[in-house]
Amino acid sequence: MHGPTATLLVTCPDQRGVVARFAQFVTECGGNIIHADNHTDFSGGRFLTRIEWQLEGFQLPREEIGTAFGPLADELQATWELHFSDARPRIAIFVSKQDHCLLDLLWRHRAGEIPGEIVFVAGNHEELAPTVRDAGIEFRHIPVAKADKSGAEARQLELLEQQRVDLVVLAKYMQILSPDFVARAPRIINIHHSFLPAFVGAKPYHQALERGVKIIGATAHYVTPELDAGPIIEQDVTRVSHRDEISDLIRHGKDLERMVLARAVRLHLTNRVLVYGNRTVVFA
Amino acid sequence: MHGPTATLLVTCPDQRGVVARFAQFVTECGGNIIHADNHTDFSGGRFLTRIEWQLEGFQLPREEIGTAFGPLADELQATWELHFSDARPRIAIFVSKQDHCLLDLLWRHRAGEIPGEIVFVAGNHEELAPTVRDAGIEFRHIPVAKADKSGAEARQLELLEQQRVDLVVLAKYMQILSPDFVARAPRIINIHHSFLPAFVGAKPYHQALERGVKIIGATAHYVTPELDAGPIIEQDVTRVSHRDEISDLIRHGKDLERMVLARAVRLHLTNRVLVYGNRTVVFA
Amino acid sequence: MHGPTATLLVTCPDQRGVVARFAQFVTECGGNIIHADNHTDFSGGRFLTRIEWQLEGFQLPREEIGTAFGPLADELQATWELHFSDARPRIAIFVSKQDHCLLDLLWRHRAGEIPGEIVFVAGNHEELAPTVRDAGIEFRHIPVAKADKSGAEARQLELLEQQRVDLVVLAKYMQILSPDFVARAPRIINIHHSFLPAFVGAKPYHQALERGVKIIGATAHYVTPELDAGPIIEQDVTRVSHRDEISDLIRHGKDLERMVLARAVRLHLTNRVLVYGNRTVVFA
Amino acid sequence: MHGPTATLLVTCPDQRGVVARFAQFVTECGGNIIHADNHTDFSGGRFLTRIEWQLEGFQLPREEIGTAFGPLADELQATWELHFSDARPRIAIFVSKQDHCLLDLLWRHRAGEIPGEIVFVAGNHEELAPTVRDAGIEFRHIPVAKADKSGAEARQLELLEQQRVDLVVLAKYMQILSPDFVARAPRIINIHHSFLPAFVGAKPYHQALERGVKIIGATAHYVTPELDAGPIIEQDVTRVSHRDEISDLIRHGKDLERMVLARAVRLHLTNRVLVYGNRTVVFA
Repeated sequence: MHGPTATLLVTCPDQRGVVARFAQFVTECGGNIIHADNHTDFSGGRFLTRIEWQLEGFQLPREEIGTAFGPLADELQATWELHFSDARPRIAIFVSKQDHCLLDLLWRHRAGEIPGEIVFVAGNHEELAPTVRDAGIEFRHIPVAKADKSGAEARQLELLEQQRVDLVVLAKYMQILSPDFVARAPRIINIHHSFLPAFVGAKPYHQALERGVKIIGATAHYVTPELDAGPIIEQDVTRVSHRDEISDLIRHGKDLERMVLARAVRLHLTNRVLVYGNRTVVFA
Repeated sequence: MHGPTATLLVTCPDQRGVVARFAQFVTECGGNIIHADNHTDFSGGRFLTRIEWQLEGFQLPREEIGTAFGPLADELQATWELHFSDARPRIAIFVSKQDHCLLDLLWRHRAGEIPGEIVFVAGNHEELAPTVRDAGIEFRHIPVAKADKSGAEARQLELLEQQRVDLVVLAKYMQILSPDFVARAPRIINIHHSFLPAFVGAKPYHQALERGVKIIGATAHYVTPELDAGPIIEQDVTRVSHRDEISDLIRHGKDLERMVLARAVRLHLTNRVLVYGNRTVVFA
Repeated sequence: MHGPTATLLVTCPDQRGVVARFAQFVTECGGNIIHADNHTDFSGGRFLTRIEWQLEGFQLPREEIGTAFGPLADELQATWELHFSDARPRIAIFVSKQDHCLLDLLWRHRAGEIPGEIVFVAGNHEELAPTVRDAGIEFRHIPVAKADKSGAEARQLELLEQQRVDLVVLAKYMQILSPDFVARAPRIINIHHSFLPAFVGAKPYHQALERGVKIIGATAHYVTPELDAGPIIEQDVTRVSHRDEISDLIRHGKDLERMVLARAVRLHLTNRVLVYGNRTVVFA
Repeated sequence: MHGPTATLLVTCPDQRGVVARFAQFVTECGGNIIHADNHTDFSGGRFLTRIEWQLEGFQLPREEIGTAFGPLADELQATWELHFSDARPRIAIFVSKQDHCLLDLLWRHRAGEIPGEIVFVAGNHEELAPTVRDAGIEFRHIPVAKADKSGAEARQLELLEQQRVDLVVLAKYMQILSPDFVARAPRIINIHHSFLPAFVGAKPYHQALERGVKIIGATAHYVTPELDAGPIIEQDVTRVSHRDEISDLIRHGKDLERMVLARAVRLHLTNRVLVYGNRTVVFA
């Protein structure tokens, strides 16, 4: 449609002139802005923006854009990320035994809906190895023994580093990650099978049935050391009724989970998500 | 469409032949069943049903139907309710200062969407008196002093009894009812401004903003002594984004609240809700 | 949960006593009804019902149930279908080049969500052959030449008969079936990529973009000789915005299509859909 | 929250530097941009933007902003609108006999949700006069005789001009407006009781029932000379089932209609809707 683009995700204290300053930075170097969206959080006094422009005709080579933007960012006390639309972030998927989210991601990967490379899938069980290998992707079996969880995490971290992974997707990975792992790993997206913050913790469908809710949901969020409490990227819900037994809730839930996880991964990889505090701004 | 009807809401231990037994009871007296819906809760071993039939041509006078049904119910260890579609249950609405749910109920009452009579509106504040009186309905001001909450509840209970109220609707009534009041009052429906069980308690919109959820909701439930924990009748949700400030969440929430409360009240009054345990079966 | 069951789907002129008559038929032979749902269409004077009971303890062998039910059905001028929950209806899937609906059905088949056997997939193109064969299912390539469409349809019909197919699922099969084919084939379910009856015909996403709608949809329906006009089984929608280009609408649409088609196929195979006139009653 | 603001809605041919040019225009005069959202329609080669800034500290008096912006707009071949958040656009509501949309607008007006003044309500019937007058708003009865439709429209136009009306809201006004009226009146918003373009024309709920759809909808759109074909502002839908008779569809539809119309009116009055061609961009 419009060739490769660069995207800046920026947050800084709210101040006069920031919209123009950022736009000018791009324009002065000949960049054609194709998307610019700004948000001011008045309660927190923060300005947040996403600017995307065509690289064609832009006078700075990619590797110099950051350097050129640095002084302006410093002046405005901004934190920022710079991404290129034709970069192919390297993705690792962690799984256990359930295949629905994994299969959905593999299909979308093949269909070109996921702008990135799935470089490996790691499972603490071996059941999904054939599925992954049939898709032409490497499967790594890293068992997690109760007695040696940190050993398993060390192997995972080593692999992530070796493979220069940019994003970890927990596609129904049923192990709790240690705060240390979370601190050292790249960005992690998890899918939780409830409409958070309802039904935190284990067996949310059983909790939902017990509570008699009329709607169930799923939540994709970035992983932080605090379980199920990271910044929410995307949620969705579906109606249920008394006719739905546990097995039906689980079945409906699987559809929600794979849709919500896939949307969150895509939003992240198209650089539409800006985390601030424990929340996200999704420039969708 | 089809004249006045009788409706039986029945629950009993699951056992062979119950569907036929109940249907036969109606048919043998010449009743034409226009709606029959059954549900078996296998985990709890309970059978639940709603049977509605035309009274025209039914050989038993209304006041004898219960007596005739009693022996069958006893044999099957059933608990049951019998309702007539042309009965006009007597409704009391409790309010504080917010008018959106009240106005919605008043309009629907006038539009014939609420199959019952609003016999009075009671407020712990006086602000809504003119609105209520303009609609031709009695407003009762019953202030609730912190020091004399039980006195206020005694006056409320007296009024409910005097006016033979069948259903109390809490339309943004911002007082917590005592367990004693709940035990002695007729059935009570409340609207909670969150997608329960998320954000129990006070200021759910502030909680929702803080947590960064992408969807907010509202929940109508029967009131039990435990706050915000009664059987859920109806829920609905709407998407929100980072652009929504607290005032926007509250505005969206008001629309949700009035829709969800109105639907719950209508479901109750058309005898479609069967409570069992802390859950409901909604025969919709 | 509850062993194999039998299900009767019945429609007859509305008349007194039908609910009891049908329930009695089951109960007298010792059947335990686990689901019975009735609907009266007052405008058309039709009674429609779905009764499901446990076969365990039922005194009639399966093959005699129809014979035993016949006289009652005749007396009530009923048309009816009898199904067994452990039957495995034989399914053929027709495809062209797009894989999203096909893959979704194959996964659900493997996951046990589709109560039937996919006996073959037939494509007018060969692109999807490897995908189908990897799933261990037979792929039949039946090209459809413009000049010899009826020849292709003859081969398809022969195959359907040979393989004793009960249900044909058009999973993005981009050929229009002739009325003759529709008349001679078993029940056919199609997925249409719009919220019918909006955007009938070709290129619905382009039509949607052109019209500037804020919501797009997908529709699963039984196929009748009249294009896009058969009884609707299931529909769903999703919000779109001006940011969505054609490629985004198509991407969102693919998710809708596979969900809606999968739900429709499952509703059909769990014997929850009763067609009458050009409409369906879905006992969900 | 943030004092009065100015908003520019601009569309021009897509060209390098427009984002920065518009932002600079505001910033150079000391304006603090609190919302800026841009959209490029690549297929049409159009750039569309909404910029909102705080008037506090802005160096140009309001009446000079347009003059100052003119040369830039001309240079970029832009068409544009300028609005102030504390302006109170003057609204006329047209009604016939149905009250649900009217009541909803009156309540929101009173609740401060509608940033404008309802200056009068005109009805071609008199039924709603008391409702309007109870709300303290002028009711004008302008009967529309079949033989003298143009006479009635002349009286309506005269009144709109006299009262300097900025926006006409058709709240279930059951008369078709002539192209001449549409050409001469200010902007008109209509609510159509279907999910357009499905069920254009009369009796959409009957059409929906006949077609057996599983979802019904409502559509708010600007009125153009071509019936039901103007640019869509907002749509929403709700699920229905075979249990819903015509009266139920109408009841569900009324809730949809008032929500969708109210949202559209608010979007328009907060200057979030930009019409181009026969479509809208909604900067929500």
